[in-house]
Amino acid sequence: MSKYTIGLDFGTESGRAMLVDVADGREVATAVYPYSHAVIDERLPDGGARLEPDWALQDPQDYIRTLQDTLPAVLRKSGVDPVDVIGLGIDFTACTMMPVKADGTPLCVLPEYRDRPHAWVKLWKHHAAQPEADQINATARKMGEAWLDRYGGKISSEWFFAKTLQILNEDPAIYEAADRLLEAADWVVWQLTGVETRNSCTAGYKAIWSKREGFPHPEFFAALHPKLANVVDEKMTHQITPIGQRAGGLTQQAAAWTGLKSGTAVAVANVDAHVAVPAATVTGPGRMVMIMGTSTCDMVLSTEEHIVPGMCGYVEDGIVPGYFGYEAGQSCVGDHFAWFVDNCVPAAYQQEADQRGLDIFQLLEEKMLQLKVGESGLVALDWWNGNRSVLVDVDLTGLLIGATLATRPEEIYRALIEATAYGKRIIIETFQKSGVAIHELVACGGLPEKSKPLMQIYADVIGLPIRVSASRQTSALGSAMFGAVAAGKAVGGYGSIYEAAQLMAHLNDEVYTAIPENQAAYEKLYNLYVLLHDYFGRGDNDVMKRLKAIRAEARR
Amino acid sequence: MSKYTIGLDFGTESGRAMLVDVADGREVATAVYPYSHAVIDERLPDGGARLEPDWALQDPQDYIRTLQDTLPAVLRKSGVDPVDVIGLGIDFTACTMMPVKADGTPLCVLPEYRDRPHAWVKLWKHHAAQPEADQINATARKMGEAWLDRYGGKISSEWFFAKTLQILNEDPAIYEAADRLLEAADWVVWQLTGVETRNSCTAGYKAIWSKREGFPHPEFFAALHPKLANVVDEKMTHQITPIGQRAGGLTQQAAAWTGLKSGTAVAVANVDAHVAVPAATVTGPGRMVMIMGTSTCDMVLSTEEHIVPGMCGYVEDGIVPGYFGYEAGQSCVGDHFAWFVDNCVPAAYQQEADQRGLDIFQLLEEKMLQLKVGESGLVALDWWNGNRSVLVDVDLTGLLIGATLATRPEEIYRALIEATAYGKRIIIETFQKSGVAIHELVACGGLPEKSKPLMQIYADVIGLPIRVSASRQTSALGSAMFGAVAAGKAVGGYGSIYEAAQLMAHLNDEVYTAIPENQAAYEKLYNLYVLLHDYFGRGDNDVMKRLKAIRAEARR
Repeated sequence: MSKYTIGLDFGTESGRAMLVDVADGREVATAVYPYSHAVIDERLPDGGARLEPDWALQDPQDYIRTLQDTLPAVLRKSGVDPVDVIGLGIDFTACTMMPVKADGTPLCVLPEYRDRPHAWVKLWKHHAAQPEADQINATARKMGEAWLDRYGGKISSEWFFAKTLQILNEDPAIYEAADRLLEAADWVVWQLTGVETRNSCTAGYKAIWSKREGFPHPEFFAALHPKLANVVDEKMTHQITPIGQRAGGLTQQAAAWTGLKSGTAVAVANVDAHVAVPAATVTGPGRMVMIMGTSTCDMVLSTEEHIVPGMCGYVEDGIVPGYFGYEAGQSCVGDHFAWFVDNCVPAAYQQEADQRGLDIFQLLEEKMLQLKVGESGLVALDWWNGNRSVLVDVDLTGLLIGATLATRPEEIYRALIEATAYGKRIIIETFQKSGVAIHELVACGGLPEKSKPLMQIYADVIGLPIRVSASRQTSALGSAMFGAVAAGKAVGGYGSIYEAAQLMAHLNDEVYTAIPENQAAYEKLYNLYVLLHDYFGRGDNDVMKRLKAIRAEARR
Repeated sequence: MSKYTIGLDFGTESGRAMLVDVADGREVATAVYPYSHAVIDERLPDGGARLEPDWALQDPQDYIRTLQDTLPAVLRKSGVDPVDVIGLGIDFTACTMMPVKADGTPLCVLPEYRDRPHAWVKLWKHHAAQPEADQINATARKMGEAWLDRYGGKISSEWFFAKTLQILNEDPAIYEAADRLLEAADWVVWQLTGVETRNSCTAGYKAIWSKREGFPHPEFFAALHPKLANVVDEKMTHQITPIGQRAGGLTQQAAAWTGLKSGTAVAVANVDAHVAVPAATVTGPGRMVMIMGTSTCDMVLSTEEHIVPGMCGYVEDGIVPGYFGYEAGQSCVGDHFAWFVDNCVPAAYQQEADQRGLDIFQLLEEKMLQLKVGESGLVALDWWNGNRSVLVDVDLTGLLIGATLATRPEEIYRALIEATAYGKRIIIETFQKSGVAIHELVACGGLPEKSKPLMQIYADVIGLPIRVSASRQTSALGSAMFGAVAAGKAVGGYGSIYEAAQLMAHLNDEVYTAIPENQAAYEKLYNLYVLLHDYFGRGDNDVMKRLKAIRAEARR
């Protein structure tokens, strides 16, 4: 008798449930629920308060509706008996955090707080806490906080304590009213199991927690704001659960919402990017996972702790239990190509694409493939959205060098793709130099599917073999795998994520390897990229920053 | 009784005659003759020999047909009595040179040479003599030729002796058969007057001649090729006539061609760019003329001889007799904006322009004017076609820095315009530092008419007042003015080009002056431009050259 497990992937615009066969990870049924309030970035629902720029909120009731909608749907579609669904795992965008009462009730559902923006869920891309992030970084540097090095020297405005401090600064009454502050991921698990847990992944990557040192000490928090001193004791917990654990069993209420049996195992929550790693077959050192979409997230495991310059962070038990999980990132990849297509592709190309029934990316790729490596004479720095790894500098900007009157759009397009590949190579070499081994790459996300030429360019530039995850929904698959682990061997699941990955995660047969001729040509171009990267990125030339300052002044 | 004079302007695709009133320069009638063979760059006429890449030839009979067509036409259109036409001046593209027999017969009209490419007129933009130019430059450097400094350290493949040496190298029989080698400008004057003259403008700017030192010495020519040693004595002349002189009177044959009276004064020939200077009212020091089109030519007069780095050349009596005429240039101006529109403006903008009945330049300008100075955060180096002044380096390429995902096409467009203005300011400051005074700019050519915002940006960046020539045909007007000077005061003309300019040349009333707020903001951006200009242009960073080398290798 087959057993099944469900992965629930909470994204930015919608939530997705995927029911998979425990034996082999086969995707049996999928259902998607588009959030009724999606991203709240102009005004609160029902004509509520207007929001400032850079705000991005969500409605936690959309998460409950996702459970109520998608779980019955996958059961119905698949015809699977709920008795045979042994586990459930969830992953989430992060840091997506919220204030709730002691019983888990979100403040924003209470009438007295409903029109207070800070009562709602702050979505990962809420960027209004930059002043707070700046204060946290400055204070940490001043106080010599060792944890800063774990995050490439800088924490982001997207992260937990920046958002928390913003609540306290801007609406102290909400901060007071919040009995608990937690990741939406953990809150959903709480709603499913009745048990409040905190997962090691978000705690480590977004809330400055580490297994060995815990959270920053109260003196640090007090230096940020006197009322923040005991935030962990008062509104969080020091008890962090490693991923791969069982959070609890489905409550009767949650069973009624979802159509699943009460008591069904629910895994500790996870982050959408990180949960993709085992789903891409990676549960040990040496193979880096690249989640390639609008931006790119790179993850690699190591048995050892290393300080690697310019990462997003490293967390023990953060990706797979038993390993240090290292995360790096490129902030402008798919977004880069979309920007180019929206802003720089001439009408004649659009016409040609329309006439030939191609999409514009296909046409650009076709033209780009006519070019030999180096033929365009162009090199770009892929900093249109700053640089995350390895420079950790949002004030860096894009650069294109080598244009002539003969330069064609497909040459620029290719140069932008190549720039992201050079940037990737710098990340990989930085890991390697710091002692984190990488000998193969595994790609997942939207881009590898969309563009084989892009994958070949990456292989040619980087010189390592690249394989591609077989699943198009690696996050949901990864969550389903953690669900099977939470269920355990006794009921037909797995004893560990390693075992689950061996049977449930798969790669495509295709391997991208460097074409020697191209690799040799790219070697020269990469050297030029590195030269420009270091010159503009490491402080010798501050033109980008001076331009940003002039720009800010002009816009004032 | 009014007197009239005619300017004949021989361009790249057509010749133009303009009949003007001697009293005030008023344009009475104009006629244009499109050359029947235009630019010959694929094969010789009548299915003749195929040409190599970079060749560009013309048919001298097109020049005669221009005389036969346009001069009768302006007489007819104006109703002016030929008796009242007192003078005729001509200007030409340069260096546009040709081999002829002793009597002036072009070799290419002789049946035995008709299918030999080297027998034809080499148009200014014939670029196939680059190896010869390289040899000339290398030899001159090796032999320590002082004249190299007069040309910014490098002579161009477009110039007279590069083209001459190419004939000798590739078709020595044609070189032998050529009794005379001369500028097409001087050849047309010869056809009109029966007198062979050589004008000081082309001799100085294109044939390495100077009033004080003459041509390079025979030893130099011999070092290039033994048979070239006495090229000046054998096929040219040491007798160079300053511009502003009368070459002769119209022959009876020329009178029959044109409908003018025989004996009508004909001025010594001139170059289209240089003759525009007095037509733009400039006949003395301190005011620089900018001829702004696809590329830009900058000219300024001085009473003194100065070595100015990176000019195209300086020639005594080269622009206006009695002064040193300095020429500088930017190789990518209007071409730059056209490249951008052809390659980088998205379909949505084209649609908007079409719907609103604007041309795409108008739309871009409208959007660009919404931006404050510095608001785009962009700076470009305007080297899409290399850099003529002041770096004299064709291997430099374009650079754009500061792009973000929010960068819009009009921001890039504005940055490209600004880059040409920064480049202009460097030229002006280089002149000033070298002792050549400039306190006002006078613009002519196509661009000032097309784009007032561009002119304002130039004023804001440069900080000098800019005025615009009233005539749209400054070259033809300038030639007409020299025609009036050749005729002389006695018959109703002028005693000098200074007098002619005072009455015949006019400026528009409008003066572009810097808006103080913009000027202050541009000061900061210009400093960043200079920093990048010097870093990439003066040898500290050779990425552009290495990219060009990689590109050349890829294309091999």
